[in-house]
Amino acid sequence: MELATSPLARPFPDMPAISGVELRVARAQYKDWDRADLTFVTLDEGTSVAGVFTQSACASSEVEMGRDQVKSGAARALIVNAGNSNAFTGYRGREAVEAIMQQVSAAIGCTPDQVFVSSTGVIGVPLPQDKARAGIDAALTAAPCGWEDAALAISTTDTFAKGAHASAIIGDTRVELCGIIKGSGMIAPDMATMLGYVFTDAGVAPAFLQEALERASARTYSCITVDGDTSTSDTVLAFATGKAGNARIESWDSPGADAFAAALEDVCRELAQLVVRDGEGASKFITVRVSGAVSDDSARAVGLAIANSPLVKTAIAGEDANWGRVVMAVGKAGEPADRDRLSIAFGGVWAARGGMPVDDYDEAPVAQHLKGEEIDLTVDLGMGHGRAAVWTCDLTHGYISINADYRS
Amino acid sequence: MELATSPLARPFPDMPAISGVELRVARAQYKDWDRADLTFVTLDEGTSVAGVFTQSACASSEVEMGRDQVKSGAARALIVNAGNSNAFTGYRGREAVEAIMQQVSAAIGCTPDQVFVSSTGVIGVPLPQDKARAGIDAALTAAPCGWEDAALAISTTDTFAKGAHASAIIGDTRVELCGIIKGSGMIAPDMATMLGYVFTDAGVAPAFLQEALERASARTYSCITVDGDTSTSDTVLAFATGKAGNARIESWDSPGADAFAAALEDVCRELAQLVVRDGEGASKFITVRVSGAVSDDSARAVGLAIANSPLVKTAIAGEDANWGRVVMAVGKAGEPADRDRLSIAFGGVWAARGGMPVDDYDEAPVAQHLKGEEIDLTVDLGMGHGRAAVWTCDLTHGYISINADYRS
Repeated sequence: MELATSPLARPFPDMPAISGVELRVARAQYKDWDRADLTFVTLDEGTSVAGVFTQSACASSEVEMGRDQVKSGAARALIVNAGNSNAFTGYRGREAVEAIMQQVSAAIGCTPDQVFVSSTGVIGVPLPQDKARAGIDAALTAAPCGWEDAALAISTTDTFAKGAHASAIIGDTRVELCGIIKGSGMIAPDMATMLGYVFTDAGVAPAFLQEALERASARTYSCITVDGDTSTSDTVLAFATGKAGNARIESWDSPGADAFAAALEDVCRELAQLVVRDGEGASKFITVRVSGAVSDDSARAVGLAIANSPLVKTAIAGEDANWGRVVMAVGKAGEPADRDRLSIAFGGVWAARGGMPVDDYDEAPVAQHLKGEEIDLTVDLGMGHGRAAVWTCDLTHGYISINADYRS
Repeated sequence: MELATSPLARPFPDMPAISGVELRVARAQYKDWDRADLTFVTLDEGTSVAGVFTQSACASSEVEMGRDQVKSGAARALIVNAGNSNAFTGYRGREAVEAIMQQVSAAIGCTPDQVFVSSTGVIGVPLPQDKARAGIDAALTAAPCGWEDAALAISTTDTFAKGAHASAIIGDTRVELCGIIKGSGMIAPDMATMLGYVFTDAGVAPAFLQEALERASARTYSCITVDGDTSTSDTVLAFATGKAGNARIESWDSPGADAFAAALEDVCRELAQLVVRDGEGASKFITVRVSGAVSDDSARAVGLAIANSPLVKTAIAGEDANWGRVVMAVGKAGEPADRDRLSIAFGGVWAARGGMPVDDYDEAPVAQHLKGEEIDLTVDLGMGHGRAAVWTCDLTHGYISINADYRS
């Protein structure tokens, strides 16, 4: 099925090369298609790695192994297979990953556990080892490519290539961070058919990189949802080559640690939002802001209950400022709330305050706001000082068409 | 919007009158429509009552008051308003309910707290007291009607009238149980825009009626889901007039207690399943059976994760035996599971066993099964002995059409 580009798509940004990182793509032809579907990234010696992975109890072998591999903190290569997730394939799936790690480590001269593998696509079919082997052979002799080619090669049902870039100053040294991501459905907190990679030339100790990535994830990838579904393969990895020459960041007390963490979070937020912008069938990008919760975590839970509500999402698809459905979603979140303190605004206009419709509520500017592509929904619970932002998209006929027809 | 009758609809059953119960309907015209929308049920003196209500933190005044009223255990009347839920209307909503309780109690000679009120429909608009008053006046002089008329009068977006009937023998006495229900969307565990009422001529002590209703609810209303959304008004009430003359059931040790509880659960299960059969846009009725869980509660949680997954529901809408999405849903349930022990069957045919696709999997009978209207999905977790059944419907373009257009 050929999908039209999402109306919420963003053009691929200009992104600099990262010293110590080389990108290549090849055609393993995991599916019957004519496109690059194997991405091969080599990383110079001394590269630090960190990772966050799906919470699924049925994770793929790639995820199980990746969780172990990041503990060593060192990476030399990343292989991403698109078209076959290799999930739910038992020992045969694990063998396929081990074969890739062996082949790549022998070719570039590193240990197998420094080779990270991700796969995305159909569940239940073991990754064909012959196709993987030939694809890697082809990649080894291919010319390096740019970020957009790599972003396209890791895609499956994505309708546009997704990348983000930020810089930070550490001491006197400017460092660059570049990220690519794929994902468009099965997106939920704890992530979902989402594979994201951030590369930086900054020198960062693995333990700090892990801490910064986890903090950034909690505020970005864990705050997006398309359909509330979580995949068995979600992975976000960060690689730091150290080629920029900055004094290595070891902890939050190191110079530039905050600046680096902020830039990392910026890249992660942009990548996460791009996934929502490619949400299956999405026609509107929705920001849900929750304030007045008893805690930030509680605010996020209420925000996700709203963002995951099919009734809220269909109302916004229909350009209906249906705050009654927002009340419903707040009520079912299971978090502290009080009907008579609840306030709800669309596009900055309060429709309800203190548990009742606003008397002189002017629906005209709200109706105008809902006609746009960028929707703001604000909920104040009136309970405390917790706040959070969550991003989602509307639920349309497009989502049904894609998912009742596409065989994942 | 005029909705076509659900393809999964069932004809309204023959249901006997219940001694001590009189049904009447009237036109309060809460909306601009031409139909009965106020239901008035009178109950003879001595009627016991029990109730279960939405868990929403933003419940309507009707629910808040109902939770208190059932504690007294006595009921003399039930009023159901359709077209306006009176939810999220602050003190004005409460005043409207109190006015109805006053008017009815004065008319039939009981205390106000013996008058139960439910309302369903638009949120955020206080129930108009003048329309309620005139509607009740009209009902007081109307001729009694039958079950189907009452089932229609409590409906909102329902596409067919829903009723269920069962009998039980208590000692030598045959007792009858008749139930009606409304609801078609916003249905989830802890219930949702769902109003259900069961009437029996059995003599049952209020405390036992409450216990039996809670047990039945946990296995029926709490095991259905249409879209995972929970309304602010869900209510199930049971009324027992005692007119059958059986020795009153006081506890599980009373003769006939088990038989009565079983009949009550039968009526509740049938009513709950009818709500799923009227699920917005539903084209298939799906039974999800989970076995091998660490506990029954865990099995139910896994079943609901599957039944609430948009990706599973759209796959079934597309008649695709996509067990990969079932794996995904099991993985995200947050319950104990092991990828390599998981087995999945459609229509009794195992597609995957022990964490891998079945080698000689024959898709033909599965494809045939998925073309039908009644879909069976079985998941065995291989962990323990917990089991549960959960009922849902598929997710289709019809759901989007109804909810992106209908202003609730």
